[in-house]
Amino acid sequence: MTQWVYPFGAGKAEGRAEMKDLLGGKGANLAEMSNLGLPVPPGFTITTEACIWYYKNGNDYPPELEAQVDKALEHVAGLVDRGFGDSEHPLLVSVRSGARASMPGMMDTVLNLGLNDRTVEGLARLADDERFALDSYRRFIHMYSDVVLGVEHHLFEEILETYKEDLGVSLDTELEARHWRDIIKSYKAKVEEELGHPFPQDVREQLWGAIGAVFGSWHSARAKTYRKLHAIPEDWGTAVNVQAMVFGNMGETSATGVAFTRNPSTGAHEFYGEYLVNAQGEDVVAGIRTPQYLTRVARERAGVSAPSMEEVMPQVFGQLTDVYKKLEAHYRDMQDIEFTVERGRLWMLQTRSGKRTAKAALKIAVDMAAENLITREEAIKRIDPASLDQLLHPTLDPKARRDVVTKGLPASPGAASGEIVFKADEAEKLKAAGRKLILVRVETSPEDIHGMHAAEGILTSRGGMTSHAAVVARGMGRPCVSGAGALRIDYATETMVVGGRKFSAGDIITIDGSSGEVMAGAVATVQPELSGDFGTLMVWADAVRRLKVRANAETPQDAATARKFGAEGIGLCRTEHMFFDEARILAVREMILADDEAGRRAALAKILPMQRADFVELFRIMAGLPVTIRLLDPPLHEFVPKTDEEIAALATASGLDAAKLKSRAADLHEFNPMLGHRGCRLGISYPEIYEMQAQAIFEAAIEAGGIAGSPVVPEVMIPLVATKRELDLLKARIDTVAAQVSKAKGQSVNYLVGTMIELPRAALMANEIAQSAEFFSFGTNDLTQTTYGISRDDAAGFLDDYLRNGIFAIDPFVSLDVDGVGELVKIAAQRGRATRPDVKLGICGEHGGDPASIAFCESVGLDYVSCSPYRVPIARLAAAQAALMNK
Amino acid sequence: MTQWVYPFGAGKAEGRAEMKDLLGGKGANLAEMSNLGLPVPPGFTITTEACIWYYKNGNDYPPELEAQVDKALEHVAGLVDRGFGDSEHPLLVSVRSGARASMPGMMDTVLNLGLNDRTVEGLARLADDERFALDSYRRFIHMYSDVVLGVEHHLFEEILETYKEDLGVSLDTELEARHWRDIIKSYKAKVEEELGHPFPQDVREQLWGAIGAVFGSWHSARAKTYRKLHAIPEDWGTAVNVQAMVFGNMGETSATGVAFTRNPSTGAHEFYGEYLVNAQGEDVVAGIRTPQYLTRVARERAGVSAPSMEEVMPQVFGQLTDVYKKLEAHYRDMQDIEFTVERGRLWMLQTRSGKRTAKAALKIAVDMAAENLITREEAIKRIDPASLDQLLHPTLDPKARRDVVTKGLPASPGAASGEIVFKADEAEKLKAAGRKLILVRVETSPEDIHGMHAAEGILTSRGGMTSHAAVVARGMGRPCVSGAGALRIDYATETMVVGGRKFSAGDIITIDGSSGEVMAGAVATVQPELSGDFGTLMVWADAVRRLKVRANAETPQDAATARKFGAEGIGLCRTEHMFFDEARILAVREMILADDEAGRRAALAKILPMQRADFVELFRIMAGLPVTIRLLDPPLHEFVPKTDEEIAALATASGLDAAKLKSRAADLHEFNPMLGHRGCRLGISYPEIYEMQAQAIFEAAIEAGGIAGSPVVPEVMIPLVATKRELDLLKARIDTVAAQVSKAKGQSVNYLVGTMIELPRAALMANEIAQSAEFFSFGTNDLTQTTYGISRDDAAGFLDDYLRNGIFAIDPFVSLDVDGVGELVKIAAQRGRATRPDVKLGICGEHGGDPASIAFCESVGLDYVSCSPYRVPIARLAAAQAALMNK
Repeated sequence: MTQWVYPFGAGKAEGRAEMKDLLGGKGANLAEMSNLGLPVPPGFTITTEACIWYYKNGNDYPPELEAQVDKALEHVAGLVDRGFGDSEHPLLVSVRSGARASMPGMMDTVLNLGLNDRTVEGLARLADDERFALDSYRRFIHMYSDVVLGVEHHLFEEILETYKEDLGVSLDTELEARHWRDIIKSYKAKVEEELGHPFPQDVREQLWGAIGAVFGSWHSARAKTYRKLHAIPEDWGTAVNVQAMVFGNMGETSATGVAFTRNPSTGAHEFYGEYLVNAQGEDVVAGIRTPQYLTRVARERAGVSAPSMEEVMPQVFGQLTDVYKKLEAHYRDMQDIEFTVERGRLWMLQTRSGKRTAKAALKIAVDMAAENLITREEAIKRIDPASLDQLLHPTLDPKARRDVVTKGLPASPGAASGEIVFKADEAEKLKAAGRKLILVRVETSPEDIHGMHAAEGILTSRGGMTSHAAVVARGMGRPCVSGAGALRIDYATETMVVGGRKFSAGDIITIDGSSGEVMAGAVATVQPELSGDFGTLMVWADAVRRLKVRANAETPQDAATARKFGAEGIGLCRTEHMFFDEARILAVREMILADDEAGRRAALAKILPMQRADFVELFRIMAGLPVTIRLLDPPLHEFVPKTDEEIAALATASGLDAAKLKSRAADLHEFNPMLGHRGCRLGISYPEIYEMQAQAIFEAAIEAGGIAGSPVVPEVMIPLVATKRELDLLKARIDTVAAQVSKAKGQSVNYLVGTMIELPRAALMANEIAQSAEFFSFGTNDLTQTTYGISRDDAAGFLDDYLRNGIFAIDPFVSLDVDGVGELVKIAAQRGRATRPDVKLGICGEHGGDPASIAFCESVGLDYVSCSPYRVPIARLAAAQAALMNK
Repeated sequence: MTQWVYPFGAGKAEGRAEMKDLLGGKGANLAEMSNLGLPVPPGFTITTEACIWYYKNGNDYPPELEAQVDKALEHVAGLVDRGFGDSEHPLLVSVRSGARASMPGMMDTVLNLGLNDRTVEGLARLADDERFALDSYRRFIHMYSDVVLGVEHHLFEEILETYKEDLGVSLDTELEARHWRDIIKSYKAKVEEELGHPFPQDVREQLWGAIGAVFGSWHSARAKTYRKLHAIPEDWGTAVNVQAMVFGNMGETSATGVAFTRNPSTGAHEFYGEYLVNAQGEDVVAGIRTPQYLTRVARERAGVSAPSMEEVMPQVFGQLTDVYKKLEAHYRDMQDIEFTVERGRLWMLQTRSGKRTAKAALKIAVDMAAENLITREEAIKRIDPASLDQLLHPTLDPKARRDVVTKGLPASPGAASGEIVFKADEAEKLKAAGRKLILVRVETSPEDIHGMHAAEGILTSRGGMTSHAAVVARGMGRPCVSGAGALRIDYATETMVVGGRKFSAGDIITIDGSSGEVMAGAVATVQPELSGDFGTLMVWADAVRRLKVRANAETPQDAATARKFGAEGIGLCRTEHMFFDEARILAVREMILADDEAGRRAALAKILPMQRADFVELFRIMAGLPVTIRLLDPPLHEFVPKTDEEIAALATASGLDAAKLKSRAADLHEFNPMLGHRGCRLGISYPEIYEMQAQAIFEAAIEAGGIAGSPVVPEVMIPLVATKRELDLLKARIDTVAAQVSKAKGQSVNYLVGTMIELPRAALMANEIAQSAEFFSFGTNDLTQTTYGISRDDAAGFLDDYLRNGIFAIDPFVSLDVDGVGELVKIAAQRGRATRPDVKLGICGEHGGDPASIAFCESVGLDYVSCSPYRVPIARLAAAQAALMNK
């Protein structure tokens, strides 16, 4: 018989931390903590398999489930000496979701389940606190009705607010037991009015309703959005954790809190967190009350007077310290814990690996390796390469003038400028139009996730360091300033006022998530610091990786950035990018629109010295590292003047007839330029273009070699090859140019000639092509376009539909499609090497900077990856991880 | 030691007919005729390998060649009892090219080689005819200087014309020996003036010059063009035939002629040809003098008085009759022969399989099978399937009014209308602009081939049935009327005058190449006759082929044509083609530009009954044969209104706002629509479109099944699938619709759901896709586009460059790229069948009607090919040939 239910509590459990897939992260860790002997309220976990079964069987439960739940519930009741539905000693439980991957705030929770008109009286007697019992009951009715029964949240809030107004009070704490009785009556009446039947008094009906709601929330819109953003499969399902309630809201000796075993923002080795006296756990996470610090040091550093837990309840704090140290040592990672203190007794409700900023992750990994808690290889594996992106982008220039208008909490590091936007939907829309935005909210909720993703940064007026906004922003690598309480935000007029200054939607502001500062206008930035922990980890990564990492760069600035980030060469210099310069575009246009070869050669002669100078500079910066130069690739019409003014300017500059230029420009129009007259097809039709480029490359190599005192060996790359013959024809011309340059300069030039593999046919014919190509560079952007038949420029029209329908797990232009495009890469690598065992193999599409794609490149044994300069460190780390994975 | 030289003559030879690759067609057949004991002037053949060696070694000869040539020349001299360069008994030779494939008129020839100032006197004495000897010498100087030395042709013609004018005569025959002496002197002076050295008197120098010129002409521009048009590899090379001269111009008992053993135009079993008394062979082919008939019957039928060869020289004619019968029986094919009669003695100069019209080929093959000369399988193999095209297109409607302006020779059958164009370059240019043209020339030459190819038909005012124009037009399948002597063509004013009527470039005329009629204006046409020999051969072909043949058709007319031509089903019904109808486009546009699903559904409801009616009609015509219907495929914006008028009309019809429509239309713009939001991506984004189409199909199937009394099983095809999941999602919807229709109509529907394989990824993932697809149809148009990364719409910009540079042997959209695209087809077929052994496999791209591509389909074991209705017979024959080839 399938075991659908795993109990835990009282120092033992049937589950273990490793059983995350089956029990979800929360359930597995509750079991693990129980086994470690930590104080965990007893409970049980219904497996993710039960959820999967539920969805596969038309939202029905496995037949054995009910009996297993009953048995587990009895066991829990026994351990705490209560009875579920017992009017004297009522067992109350929490029901929480818990999937394999942490999905913070995305799944629904029900607390205080088991309360009804009878048990609430029992609870009042047991706790000797009628007000507490009634408060718990009204919370339960509210939460259960909202989450399980679908009665809208605000209906209950309105009842409460009206009641308080009528009573003339403003705080919940001013309400007494008899007031809660009235309110409970109104709540129940409202539920019956809304649903046509009363609030369930049967505690078993309550429990199964909650279990169903947890399963149901797996397919809620916001859970789906989260999974889409985080590439979590739809078919994992969630577990359900049913656990005896403990109460942080049983007066001043009770409390609830969340903590990290190290600082999740900086990585500092310090206990870090917040707590609230006399509150339930959800109160902290929701960011409704501003919580207090855990440690005295933290409180003092923040200059806050509200006492820390360390000061208020030193004994329990001492216990908590023992627990967190034990947990970190046991899990060998920084933990994110939740706890409740019920009348002076500590209960652990959760532990899990804590989310952290990239900077913190780096520091924690390097520190833990130094502490011998983990190995260097583990440290390497611990860092999500993509997260490094956060560290590699500019921060605010300390010397730049800052018009600081207010300060909030430094909730997620990094700085960003952008237009103010107040609504998530609007943010998403404007982002699609290429705008840079700062999302400004009173507080954020899961409904805002798409807007947070679209924004450059997030600013909230409420909530702490562990509020929804803070946690999600850190996960996304977006800068965030939270709890900037001086802000007055008015959604209706789309304005915010602070310190007497008014800002409207569209105004530019800057936030610094590392300092909490909010500034008017845009502020200049500086390059990130690449030494310290970052440098240490990079050294470790470089020691284990096999793949070389190059950069895609054309400009001296990009090349310099690439070297600074550790690029071992240039894998793709797109020569056409050198053509858009104001000073050159006229000559380029003259070349393109020339009537004949003579006209083109005349224009090319003007371009030659500029190209040569570009290459000299590039070779000089790269100082002997390999530089792969791709000859002209894009459809010529990309350079074609579009407006009459541009044509007139060109006519004047070139002395050519404007009408003729216009007609020639029209001739160059293509229906599908991506599949048109571009790449080596230009070289075949207009060999003089490639000849000029080859001449510039070889002359520059000689000149730069002379400056450096050592020879430069350029790698000349022919784009969009589909047949060996194309390569042969063009290689012959390049060889001829090399011989001519060599003769003219009296100096030999060494060079390689290779090809992009970016068409399915080229991949299939790699055995033939490798007879002539000394290297292959996989252009996986184009290869993805042709293999899938999808234009990256036009995919937006259906990409969302494809992600939503599970056709794409991830945009194939972001992460390489291993099954389809990957097979072609594999075929090409095998066939290429079969012909020429030492053919150099690299990848230079956007995928070259994507960790999953880099893992694939390692698995097929490519020699290098090439990516944008800022992604070079990501690639270095990902390559190291891939090497470790393949070990 | 390599044998570079193969002698023949005097009843034996070292070569054989099978050695065509080595000796070229002409050389191999000269050897074969020698071995058959036929009267062949002795000579020898320098092999094609020598030519290949020559090009591989920087235009140098193999070292052993000279000695081998010397020896062979001595042998020839011995046989004819002459000496090469001997002043008393001079041996004269012809030097001719001869490649593996016949390239008529493309290679250069030199006659009378061995004449110089001394040997010409010897020849005069031997022939006892000074004028003949001097005429031969002046012809030799002219021809040799032109072909070998590169002195321009017209320089000699000017000397001759001036001389005749000075002398006051108009015909060459009026010139006497002393005049020729003067002219020879002037010719030699001109050569020395042009080249700076005298005309070579050394006969060996003459010979090697001529051999070099033959080799050189292999790479002449016109030879390259011919090879490009006929897909002849560049590296075959040509052989050189050196043969003792015989003279058809030694007076009235001498003659020269060309003949076919059967009628090459109709295929009739009759000896057919032309001859000229007192002429050299080139005179007939060049079409300068109008030749006479060979047989009395032919002369009488033509109503001509100039006597036939049968009447003039009955004895030699009898000999010739014996020879041609022997040759046809020996070669088991219709022969094209050349002969010369020298003072009453017959010499055979050439035999080869004769070019023929498609109609003639059909008749000859069927007749020869009936005569038991060849088998039925051989008859099938004899017909070039592509040539059937000539028989399948309409001919002039006999009932249509014809404004006949003149009549010429019926040189190549078929009828065509078009604008008059006088220049080949112009024809090519206008054709590219989509114009239909008739190329009108005094006579054609190899320089005109590209223009002949571009024209619908060719009309000449000079030249016979075997003139350049006639031979080439028949080969190309273009109608041709030659020798329409009444035409006065003026290239300068681009006009032609006939019977007092003047026609200018751009005026429409019609030619009937089967009758020789030339008509003013366009003339209506009728469908071709498909019975007779055609029907017989088709029955034979159907008996041996394995591949089924279907048609691509949407309209009732196309479907009816397809059935008439023997289609066994519809392989591709492009539903979008049904949308362009005037009455429907508004509803379609309304659907496309709708804001939301409700708007789309409203418009689709209008389209549904029209689609259903289409399908009912199609199913009715196809009467139970399989019909594959492809759901909507093209980018939506193809249907989008482009002009403001169209938008206004749509706004009126739909009641929608014009500005909004315009903006939505702009949203639909794509950069690369071929790779954009099209195919099944539309079905994923707008499932209601495919649901409507499925509903129309299933309702129509039930309705048509009811009419026919037997069930219709439609094959529903999903286009542009790249992943199994796309197919699964859409198949689920189609199945749902089928169930709904079935329930509503109380009748079950049987159907298949399959997919196009037209993306490289689909081919690679065929194993997965076949889990859900019941059939694959290879869309090789799109598969070629994506595998090569070439848009068919944009390829024109470089296709010529690619053909000229030998990158493409043939346009890959015309004939399937077996190496690249073909490998993907092979992979998909294998993987698809591995998953689902009975998955039905077909091809529905343009390649489905291309014989070479059909051979490939047979080799990978597809189940059927589908092509345009007019190509169905071609496909049936090609499939039969492929089956025989694979046997």
